[in-house]
Amino acid sequence: MKLLLATRNQKKLVELRRVLAEAAPHVSLVGLDDVPPYPESPETGLTFEDNALLKAREAASITGLPSVGDDSGLAVDALNGMPGVFSARWSGLPSGTPDRDGANLRLVLAQIADVPDEHLGGAFVCAAAIVWPDGREAVHRGEMRGRLIRAPRGDGGFGYDPIFVAEGYDLTTAELPPAEKDAISHRGKAFRALAATL
Amino acid sequence: MKLLLATRNQKKLVELRRVLAEAAPHVSLVGLDDVPPYPESPETGLTFEDNALLKAREAASITGLPSVGDDSGLAVDALNGMPGVFSARWSGLPSGTPDRDGANLRLVLAQIADVPDEHLGGAFVCAAAIVWPDGREAVHRGEMRGRLIRAPRGDGGFGYDPIFVAEGYDLTTAELPPAEKDAISHRGKAFRALAATL
Repeated sequence: MKLLLATRNQKKLVELRRVLAEAAPHVSLVGLDDVPPYPESPETGLTFEDNALLKAREAASITGLPSVGDDSGLAVDALNGMPGVFSARWSGLPSGTPDRDGANLRLVLAQIADVPDEHLGGAFVCAAAIVWPDGREAVHRGEMRGRLIRAPRGDGGFGYDPIFVAEGYDLTTAELPPAEKDAISHRGKAFRALAATL
Repeated sequence: MKLLLATRNQKKLVELRRVLAEAAPHVSLVGLDDVPPYPESPETGLTFEDNALLKAREAASITGLPSVGDDSGLAVDALNGMPGVFSARWSGLPSGTPDRDGANLRLVLAQIADVPDEHLGGAFVCAAAIVWPDGREAVHRGEMRGRLIRAPRGDGGFGYDPIFVAEGYDLTTAELPPAEKDAISHRGKAFRALAATL
């Protein structure tokens, strides 16, 4: 079965393809670069679930493929859950700007510079929505609790991974082997829940 | 009576001096530039009230003067109440950076670029704490509800004033005459409440 993940983020496609390969090996995952281009709507939702559904509905209605939309981000306790749905555009830089991830990460670090260590808790959150051509839809949510550190470590993962240490770990999620990260990640949890329904 | 406002922000001193002139004309307000310098602690609080108290306690204990600490900021609904206590350092630029206010404002505008108009509500919030040399202390809170606009207007005020329109108004708080702004502002409310106790 062909399934469209409504993203152009290659790292995300790779991460989700690994998850789906185990749970739903009959599924062939393609991304937005593999289908005819269409004008994508902006992410106007104020929750991860809203944005995931917006993306999946748009992709399904335009391509006719069963489509997955995901939205994820870092929720920092001291920032009242922000950057949240704004994680990818936290620094205000437009999509495609070189090192936008780095700018976002550095901005969060600057914002929490004076926050005491004991208040650096947070979570990675992911909502994964699937919309079928016949209109059925479902949303799954995954979370990974942890804490922020003040200096980036590690080259794996993407986004805020270099400054996030999951509960029970000492390595950042950018330092964990991919399979180990998938096993505990917000996205892994949301996508395994989704994959189990395929 | 000499009262110290623990700030180096001249615009804030002027704004608060106007408010106090009416409500407590016997009070002579001085700022941190008018007292011997001391190393100021970072604002580590996660609420406006915490930060206002931290500043007032530090100033009173070091100078021996009755001291006011205030903390204020913009709470954007779609950003879960952020920039909040991080309003002045939202863009991550260090204090003293030229046009830091402008950078903060532009960052908020970029972050809310895709947020629909109907979700652009917010409030300016101020906490004003007074700490007396004998240890008595009190905190007063003021709020001004309104909504954000997408392009700055007006040269008055400071901070996020050019993108904030108070409830019942069409002009931004940067376009309002200072006396009119004082009458409705978060800081005016908090400081009138504080001044009434002097």
